[in-house]
Amino acid sequence: MYRTHNCGELRMANVGEEVTLSGWIQGSRDLGFMMYTDLRDRYGITQLIFTEENTTKEVFESARTLGREYVVKVKGTVLERKSKNPNIPTGDIEIDVNDLEILNASKVPPFTIEDDTDGGDELRMKYRYLDLRRKPVQENLIFRSRVAVETRSYLSQAGFIEVETPVLIKSTPEGARDFVVPSRMNKGQFYALPQSPQTFKQILMVGGFDKYFQLVKCFRDEDLRADRQPEFTQIDCEMSFVTQEEILNTFEGLTRYLFKTCKGLDLPEFPRMTYDEAMEKYGSDKPDTRFGMEFHNLNGVAKGKGFPVFDSAELVAGINAEGQADNYSNKDIKKLTEWMQRPQIGAKGLVYVKFNTDGSIKSSVGKFYSDDDLKAWGEEFGAKPGDMLLILSGEEEKTRKQLNELRLEMGERMGLRNPQEFKPLWVVDFPLLEWDEDTERFHAMHHPFTSPKKEDVERMMNGDHETMKALRADAYDLVINGVEIGGGSIRIHDRDLQSRNFDLLGFTREEAMAQFGFLLGAFEYGAPPHGGLAFGFDRLCAVMMGQNTIRDFIAFPKNNQGRDMMIDAPSPIHDEQLDELCLGIHLPKEA
Amino acid sequence: MYRTHNCGELRMANVGEEVTLSGWIQGSRDLGFMMYTDLRDRYGITQLIFTEENTTKEVFESARTLGREYVVKVKGTVLERKSKNPNIPTGDIEIDVNDLEILNASKVPPFTIEDDTDGGDELRMKYRYLDLRRKPVQENLIFRSRVAVETRSYLSQAGFIEVETPVLIKSTPEGARDFVVPSRMNKGQFYALPQSPQTFKQILMVGGFDKYFQLVKCFRDEDLRADRQPEFTQIDCEMSFVTQEEILNTFEGLTRYLFKTCKGLDLPEFPRMTYDEAMEKYGSDKPDTRFGMEFHNLNGVAKGKGFPVFDSAELVAGINAEGQADNYSNKDIKKLTEWMQRPQIGAKGLVYVKFNTDGSIKSSVGKFYSDDDLKAWGEEFGAKPGDMLLILSGEEEKTRKQLNELRLEMGERMGLRNPQEFKPLWVVDFPLLEWDEDTERFHAMHHPFTSPKKEDVERMMNGDHETMKALRADAYDLVINGVEIGGGSIRIHDRDLQSRNFDLLGFTREEAMAQFGFLLGAFEYGAPPHGGLAFGFDRLCAVMMGQNTIRDFIAFPKNNQGRDMMIDAPSPIHDEQLDELCLGIHLPKEA
Repeated sequence: MYRTHNCGELRMANVGEEVTLSGWIQGSRDLGFMMYTDLRDRYGITQLIFTEENTTKEVFESARTLGREYVVKVKGTVLERKSKNPNIPTGDIEIDVNDLEILNASKVPPFTIEDDTDGGDELRMKYRYLDLRRKPVQENLIFRSRVAVETRSYLSQAGFIEVETPVLIKSTPEGARDFVVPSRMNKGQFYALPQSPQTFKQILMVGGFDKYFQLVKCFRDEDLRADRQPEFTQIDCEMSFVTQEEILNTFEGLTRYLFKTCKGLDLPEFPRMTYDEAMEKYGSDKPDTRFGMEFHNLNGVAKGKGFPVFDSAELVAGINAEGQADNYSNKDIKKLTEWMQRPQIGAKGLVYVKFNTDGSIKSSVGKFYSDDDLKAWGEEFGAKPGDMLLILSGEEEKTRKQLNELRLEMGERMGLRNPQEFKPLWVVDFPLLEWDEDTERFHAMHHPFTSPKKEDVERMMNGDHETMKALRADAYDLVINGVEIGGGSIRIHDRDLQSRNFDLLGFTREEAMAQFGFLLGAFEYGAPPHGGLAFGFDRLCAVMMGQNTIRDFIAFPKNNQGRDMMIDAPSPIHDEQLDELCLGIHLPKEA
Repeated sequence: MYRTHNCGELRMANVGEEVTLSGWIQGSRDLGFMMYTDLRDRYGITQLIFTEENTTKEVFESARTLGREYVVKVKGTVLERKSKNPNIPTGDIEIDVNDLEILNASKVPPFTIEDDTDGGDELRMKYRYLDLRRKPVQENLIFRSRVAVETRSYLSQAGFIEVETPVLIKSTPEGARDFVVPSRMNKGQFYALPQSPQTFKQILMVGGFDKYFQLVKCFRDEDLRADRQPEFTQIDCEMSFVTQEEILNTFEGLTRYLFKTCKGLDLPEFPRMTYDEAMEKYGSDKPDTRFGMEFHNLNGVAKGKGFPVFDSAELVAGINAEGQADNYSNKDIKKLTEWMQRPQIGAKGLVYVKFNTDGSIKSSVGKFYSDDDLKAWGEEFGAKPGDMLLILSGEEEKTRKQLNELRLEMGERMGLRNPQEFKPLWVVDFPLLEWDEDTERFHAMHHPFTSPKKEDVERMMNGDHETMKALRADAYDLVINGVEIGGGSIRIHDRDLQSRNFDLLGFTREEAMAQFGFLLGAFEYGAPPHGGLAFGFDRLCAVMMGQNTIRDFIAFPKNNQGRDMMIDAPSPIHDEQLDELCLGIHLPKEA
């Protein structure tokens, strides 16, 4: 037996007991006649002491050879410590070691196994087994495991059945790019890895499962900018005979339950906001509502006064950075303007109006507008002395997007985005279709199976092109702190309506049948009304822990080139494997 | 709102209530002036009545149009039934319908949605959404969901952390064939889908996770004979600082907990048997111990009496089919012999000895052996009057395998394999290595990471070829009713021992480093002693329900050609997809 206790559980009540512990050497202090050593495992750290009196010379000498990360088993007696350490739960006791066995040695790790390590990203990914020993990494993954347990507990209690849907499915050229898997038994054909189990969960509803859920791996072969991973996990759900209201209540309930059980936090009822309102007030369908700083439209007061930039703009709008007038020098504003002009944001310029605490007004467009003009702007915002307006103009959609970036940046700078404060929001009433000017076709705003609102069905079946742009869907997103946790919709369950949607999305009848014939077929055999949603599980965990990157909540993440640095994958395969699959590789010639 | 109650919950206590129900039409009986209709959902069946008195003419006429599998919503009053149905929980009540809405129509299903359906396998797989409505299919999948919940509950309680390991990993040409996934970002390179998360769970132990589990999809590109699926699910576990004894106790505890919570059954402590004993007594490392009928070696009493077949055989052995002497005519025995001679089994012949109830002895080898000789055989088996010995001979290993088939067949015929009786067994002390005469190399009996027993380590590091054959491993399988539920082992955690094992298995040092360098590296940085196991989850569910095929416990199984008949996958992909992956298809020319 390797241990009677783990390294986190011994207390004063155990004093006098003979115990066996196993773990890793965190570090040692050698005082010559005695030695202190910290022994670590997942559960905690326990202090060992080796003294010339109580151990054999052999054990004492052996203890002296222990390096960091050596794995040992020790036997000894639990003692009360003379100088206690109130910072750790085992800080009242120590182990007087009388026997030591070295289970495995360790080379010196390439970075320190501490909360704050000196290892760079690539190095830590290569030696992931060492990074996984660090407490913050373990805590994140243990938290994730906990959230998974509680998610399943809540949904099972609510009558949901977890059903596993297949990983080897069919490629559909819609949406993001599929990972494909060549079939050996069906030569020249491919499976695809699911981007989501969407059609399968709908089939389960047609199959009468009523309430389905799954924590499920999904896959997207996208270019991995920012915080994306080629494989990620969803909390995926679907319900039959259900209205949007019931779905929102169920998953608001889940979210509040998770915050309560995993964080000890009581969240109030989640507010709801329409897509239109979110775009109007925040220029984003996932607004961070931890702070206000809403957009105000200045078209009425700023246009027609002779400033050509505003006069020619479709939209003039801005935000009020409260109390910032004194904090921003001309140089600061110049820097902020340059930040906004970077290609990622692409603003042409940035107009400011400072309402100084001394009552004076200063603005970059002061020569076009009188103080009275600028005061009228301030009234739109309810600006007080000390406030600073930041104003953008241009094409409406672009301007809102730019202003959204500016708002988030100012919120960040002003400390309004506290990662330990949680502001959830349901965004509802999304448009059904999105017109793409470039390709001159409609895209599904959510996905091709989303139902228009009941009152819009008739218009969708018979309306003209412009009518289609105005259709609203029973589609909804859950946003927390400006991060989209997930979303869903009521689905179409009528074959004709689904066919009409495929038509609008530019599918030929043949394409629709080839890709989704099974679903259209299923709708002919008594499909119930149904709807559901999916949460991004990695992202939910990150947001709940007040962190930004999902990579820190995945045990073995891939880097931005889609590589697993530890196992060195992907990698070439043998010619025999290619031959069995009837595949050849045709690399492009180097220029 | 679609419903106030589901179709399985209304009782006498609800009589008089106004309710709304939604579901599928199971069937109707039209009596002219009134109509009975059964409404079905996942939860049960509720009887509806439509009467000319209580509904409008419109509703009554509409009810008449309802076909099987139509989806409807009804409102009405709960009444006490005049003629109650004690066979269903809702049998005391019925709904007097006053409003009916047809939510969706249905074509006539291609097979009946009943417990015993008239649909063939292929038809039911194509219309899986209809097959899923059948009660036995729903019950299997709901049972599976339940077992998953309880598995997670038990392991979480025991301190295991569920960690998700990656699906996109690296191809290793060992073991079964990998499914591979071409990488677009790393052209000409491939990921592989995991056959198991073996190395990742070991890395988690090196990373200090101490106790890991996961219900995880695994993949094998094998030819799909019998009851195999290209994707299947494992309960996968690993523990650190652990002995074989602790692992067996933990997972025996899990298994008993699952039988208790999901089946209401108390299983006694699981017996243990060495691999050698299992092969000796049953000719199989997964014996069905619901019945005895153990092998007896007759070499001592049957050889040297002038019967050339036995005299030249390496092994003469048999079983005692108790009480079967009177049940088997010469014709029956001829048929049984022919069954044993089929190529799948390949026995040369079958010798019988009947100890008739009248005291006489009859045998197919009566002219070579006296009654006293045959009586001596009977004594080996403890045979009683009425018993029948069945005896095989030949090369030892082959003969045991054939006798195993015969034993299972006789157990089946004699009704000794009751699917509702459960006999678990730990098979332990597997050989470490298996010598393959054909390829003249060793194979890992379990897998290349399995540790030899502590007392065999020294011999393994330094012994000769013959010594290697005798090495025993800390490896174990759980068998229930002759089905291998899963197995595991204590792993190697020492780099030198792992290298030695790779050497023995025929890896060059370069191959070992290319494929498992990360693991060998990990062993240099303080790898703890560890071990674990994996259960086949689909198979566990099937065995617990007394069923033979895992396909019935998978929501969307594939057929023997690896095809999903419903979605028609795998399928060709677009040339653009191939081009992006730098792949070409080279189908063999038709002859």
